[in-house]
Amino acid sequence: MSEQKNQNLKIVTAAMLVIGDEILSGRTQDKNVSYVALKLGDASIQLKEVRVIPDDTSEIVDALNHCRKKYDYVFTSGGIGPTHDDITADSVAEAFSVGIGYDDRAMEILTRHYETSGIEFNEARKRMARLPNGSSLVDNPVSKAPGFRLENVFVMAGVPVIMQAMMDSIIPELNGGAKMLSRSIGAALPEGKIAKDLGALQDKYPDVSIGSYPFFRKGEVGTNLVMRSIVKTSLDSAFTDLEKLLKDSGSEIVETT
Amino acid sequence: MSEQKNQNLKIVTAAMLVIGDEILSGRTQDKNVSYVALKLGDASIQLKEVRVIPDDTSEIVDALNHCRKKYDYVFTSGGIGPTHDDITADSVAEAFSVGIGYDDRAMEILTRHYETSGIEFNEARKRMARLPNGSSLVDNPVSKAPGFRLENVFVMAGVPVIMQAMMDSIIPELNGGAKMLSRSIGAALPEGKIAKDLGALQDKYPDVSIGSYPFFRKGEVGTNLVMRSIVKTSLDSAFTDLEKLLKDSGSEIVETT
Repeated sequence: MSEQKNQNLKIVTAAMLVIGDEILSGRTQDKNVSYVALKLGDASIQLKEVRVIPDDTSEIVDALNHCRKKYDYVFTSGGIGPTHDDITADSVAEAFSVGIGYDDRAMEILTRHYETSGIEFNEARKRMARLPNGSSLVDNPVSKAPGFRLENVFVMAGVPVIMQAMMDSIIPELNGGAKMLSRSIGAALPEGKIAKDLGALQDKYPDVSIGSYPFFRKGEVGTNLVMRSIVKTSLDSAFTDLEKLLKDSGSEIVETT
Repeated sequence: MSEQKNQNLKIVTAAMLVIGDEILSGRTQDKNVSYVALKLGDASIQLKEVRVIPDDTSEIVDALNHCRKKYDYVFTSGGIGPTHDDITADSVAEAFSVGIGYDDRAMEILTRHYETSGIEFNEARKRMARLPNGSSLVDNPVSKAPGFRLENVFVMAGVPVIMQAMMDSIIPELNGGAKMLSRSIGAALPEGKIAKDLGALQDKYPDVSIGSYPFFRKGEVGTNLVMRSIVKTSLDSAFTDLEKLLKDSGSEIVETT
C-alpha cells in the first residue's frame, strides 16, 4: 500500500509532429514514431497523438500551437536542414511569436565541424544555425547541426539515425510521471470468441486499459491482448484473471510478456 | 498547350486517422499509412495529413469532425472489431450526430460467413454489424466483417492485410483530381553543397515542389531530390535543370526515377 501511495500518479503526455511531404506521399516509411514512443514510454511519458503534416508553414504553426498547449511535451522531426524546404525553425519561431537569428553556440559548433572536415561552411549550411530566440540546443552527435528546445517543444532532424541520437540526448531533460506498466499475452484464438469476457474484465478493472489486437500469421488467426495501467496491483490482478479466462477457453498461449 | 488546358487541375485532398493505442505505445509499427498514401496518389488524391490518435471517443470525434470538413476524403483504420475497445463505429455516429444500429446487409454477410465456417455468431461478433445510419458498406474479402462509408469518411479495419483489401475496394468509388506527378534523383552529395542552387530552382519553378532528403548509407552521405507537380511541362523542365545542376557539381547520380 505504502509503495503505491509513493508512486507518482501524475500522467505526463506528449505529441509528435512528423513534418514532411515525403511521408505523406508514401515514398518514405516513417521509422521515427515507434522509436520516440518507446523512448517516451521508458521515461514514463505517454505519447497521446502523432500528426504527419506537410512542409507548410501555416500547417506546422497550427499543429504546433494546438499540441504544445494540450500536451506536456511536443517532439517534432524533419525540416531542419540547409535547403529551402527546411522551414521548421522559422515555423516554430512564428508559432511562439519570437524572433529568429543565427545562434552563437550553434555557429561555433558548425564552424568547428566544417573547419575540421574541410567542407565549405556556406550560406545554406549557416541556415542550420538559425534558431528561434530563447532556444536551447539539442546535441547532434551524428552530423553536428543541432536540434533545439523552446519551452516544451523539442525540434529534431528527420533522418532516423540523427533523430534517434537527438532523442537519446533529450531524454535526461524530461520529467516523467506515472509509469505506464504493461503486460501482454498472445493467444491462438479469434478475439470474437472471448470478446464478451474481455469486456466484463474491462468493466471489472477500470484503471487497466485492455487492448485486443487480432493478427493473421501463416493462415492462423490469433489475438494479442495487451493490458496497460499505472497501478501495478490492478494490472497484475487483471492479468491473472485474463490468464484464467484464456485457460478456461482452452486457447493455446503463444507468447507472454 | 491544349493537353494541359484539358487537364483536371482541381486538387483533391485526403486525411487519414490511424486509431489505436498500440501504435502510440510503440508496440506496433504502422504499415497502413504508406499503403493508403501510395494508393491515393495513384488515384490522383493527395494525402495531406495523418493523425494517430488513441482509442478514445472524444479524440476520434474531434479529429474526424476537423478532418472531414477540411479535406475531401477521410480514411480511418482501426477499431471496428468485436471487442470492447472497438469504438470507431460509435464514434463516427457521434461525430455525424446520427444513430447507430444493426445493419441488415452487414448482418446477412456475417450470418452467412459464420454459418459457413461453423463458428458461433455470438453477441460480440454481431457488434461488427452495427453501423451508423446512412452508411454504405466497404467490402472485406479477407474476414468478411465490412468497413463502411458515411459521406466522405471511409472506415477500415486496422489489421494491414484487411485494411489493404478494403482500400483496394474503395479506390473505384473515389473521384480524383489533378494527378500529382513526380520525378526523383538520388545523388552522392551532401544537400548543403547544392542548397543555394536548389533554392534558386524552387524560385524559378513555383508550381513544382522540390524536396531534398539527405540519407546516410554505408557511411556515405547522399541526397534524394524529389520534384512534384501537377503540371508536366514544368516538372520536366525543372528536372532537366536539376540534372544539369548536378552534372555541373560533379556529383555521381545514384538513381533516377
